[in-house]
Amino acid sequence: MTHPVIIGVDLGATNVEAAAVRDGDVLKSKKKKTRPEKGVEEVIDRIEKTIRKVFDKMDAEADDFAAVCIGAPGAVDTEAGIVRSAPNLKWDDVPLGEVLHGRLGLPVMVDNDVNVGVVGEHVHGAGKGALDMIGIFVGTGIGGGLIVNGTPHYGWRGAAGEVGHVIVKPHGRTCGCGREGCVEAYASKTAMEAIIREEMEKGRDTQVFEIMEDKGKNKLTSSVIEASLEAEDPLMEEALQNSQYYLGILTADLVNVLDPEIVVYGGGVVERLGESFLKPIKRTARQHYLQRRGAEQIRIVPAALGDDAGPIGAAVVAQRRLRASVN
Amino acid sequence: MTHPVIIGVDLGATNVEAAAVRDGDVLKSKKKKTRPEKGVEEVIDRIEKTIRKVFDKMDAEADDFAAVCIGAPGAVDTEAGIVRSAPNLKWDDVPLGEVLHGRLGLPVMVDNDVNVGVVGEHVHGAGKGALDMIGIFVGTGIGGGLIVNGTPHYGWRGAAGEVGHVIVKPHGRTCGCGREGCVEAYASKTAMEAIIREEMEKGRDTQVFEIMEDKGKNKLTSSVIEASLEAEDPLMEEALQNSQYYLGILTADLVNVLDPEIVVYGGGVVERLGESFLKPIKRTARQHYLQRRGAEQIRIVPAALGDDAGPIGAAVVAQRRLRASVN
Repeated sequence: MTHPVIIGVDLGATNVEAAAVRDGDVLKSKKKKTRPEKGVEEVIDRIEKTIRKVFDKMDAEADDFAAVCIGAPGAVDTEAGIVRSAPNLKWDDVPLGEVLHGRLGLPVMVDNDVNVGVVGEHVHGAGKGALDMIGIFVGTGIGGGLIVNGTPHYGWRGAAGEVGHVIVKPHGRTCGCGREGCVEAYASKTAMEAIIREEMEKGRDTQVFEIMEDKGKNKLTSSVIEASLEAEDPLMEEALQNSQYYLGILTADLVNVLDPEIVVYGGGVVERLGESFLKPIKRTARQHYLQRRGAEQIRIVPAALGDDAGPIGAAVVAQRRLRASVN
Repeated sequence: MTHPVIIGVDLGATNVEAAAVRDGDVLKSKKKKTRPEKGVEEVIDRIEKTIRKVFDKMDAEADDFAAVCIGAPGAVDTEAGIVRSAPNLKWDDVPLGEVLHGRLGLPVMVDNDVNVGVVGEHVHGAGKGALDMIGIFVGTGIGGGLIVNGTPHYGWRGAAGEVGHVIVKPHGRTCGCGREGCVEAYASKTAMEAIIREEMEKGRDTQVFEIMEDKGKNKLTSSVIEASLEAEDPLMEEALQNSQYYLGILTADLVNVLDPEIVVYGGGVVERLGESFLKPIKRTARQHYLQRRGAEQIRIVPAALGDDAGPIGAAVVAQRRLRASVN
């Protein structure tokens, strides 16, 4: 028996990517801009069009797929398929599952994008075979997810894995969440940009904002970070080292509490800079977690699936839920 | 069918307590001094005598009990029944299970004392019925344990739950573990005593050390803390507030990462001061964890079983292992 083909979708604030996935392999995929500023209806239309484009690429129809599963950037009611709150999309209580089910005639499941990406990396990526894994995603924010004893740990309210809001400095920088000293307020791309801007306003030199303009970007993207490091911009170097230091502390905290076999780092910055981004994080982490027996065997590695972690993980989530509903 | 009676033992650096336990009820118990300074042999003799005293109190013989289970203060190889490393006892690689099995003729199991206490509180104490629970024990150090999805989470190397070594202040005070800024370096009784001593040496007034002497204690015990607070000693009050603040940060970190239903605080200080110790911890925690749906329902409560958590939890662990070995 061949396994079914599932449409996995990664819904981000910038792009929506849909892929036809079988057994962890992306057969065909399509990416479109999300355009959240145009409103909920327009975004759902774009998700539908992206999915239908994958149908076309596969020379197939809806019936040929077993399900659609969407990773959405926010709090999700997975039972009801409702996106409860997705601040980056400005969505509240959007019944995404029901609406798309009506349009496509397929089972449509919705889950949190980071949870889905962590499942992808666990089942088919860098965390393959690990019983206990922590996924940390560094982007405009810091997200995370936990695999405990082989399965995703969602927590009591479905709110587990908020590693970006671990306090690394009491009374520290104000975070996007409104609290002080969260690791996200030091280590995210947003935080690095803010820190560089503050230092510049204090009179220090930087080329980061010129590089940003040259690249036609309005914020600190991973490619701007890379180019600024190539130009040996001192403020960029400092901000990055600062980010890595606090991510090292975060990693140590999580190792001490959860004792994982592997910590997988993903997101744009990690993809772009690879092992060189992780090296200082590992060093700081190892300085800060307890050196008990076997501590040297804990692996801290880059994610393996890149942008495909979302769709691939979504397909795994869909397959598990289909199986659970059959049994 | 009545459940078997199990001997649960809590082996601490100061006292060893053994109890005959059935279904979470302590039928008879006995406590002796541990005297680790007298060497491994003497301590094992004392454990055996304490257990035999419980046999006597029960008017029973070894055969009348199903097993002995010991919670030991350190890293334990639970499969082999070996205490790998217990710094407070100055023990390394002590085959406690085998030796006591030879003397008593009963199955003897060994586990970590904090894990066993957390299981006790989860099954028969403050965490009854919770799927996801965090236990935090405040004593001479800060220990902890996790219940994930109804079962204890030991981690990949059996090292999970080291909540005392979460970094709450980068480059902060030096901890007993040799690292800087661990919560244990601020919030444990040892840390509070050190902080008070430092402030005194800077010329500030305190009665804490007189109170200690009056009570014939050579360190900051829970009763010394209580008496010093009653005397409104300003350094004691400050040190306690400091401890509570950092425990609040720790609690928030753990809530954000694990999303538990309940956080149970145990240990001598909590037992002595009760809810008044927890109130500032709760306030700081709530200020620092994300206020998602349901966040107001997370409970932060004192442990319910006191000193009996160890023996009761040990009995639960023994029963589970007996069942697993039958099936």
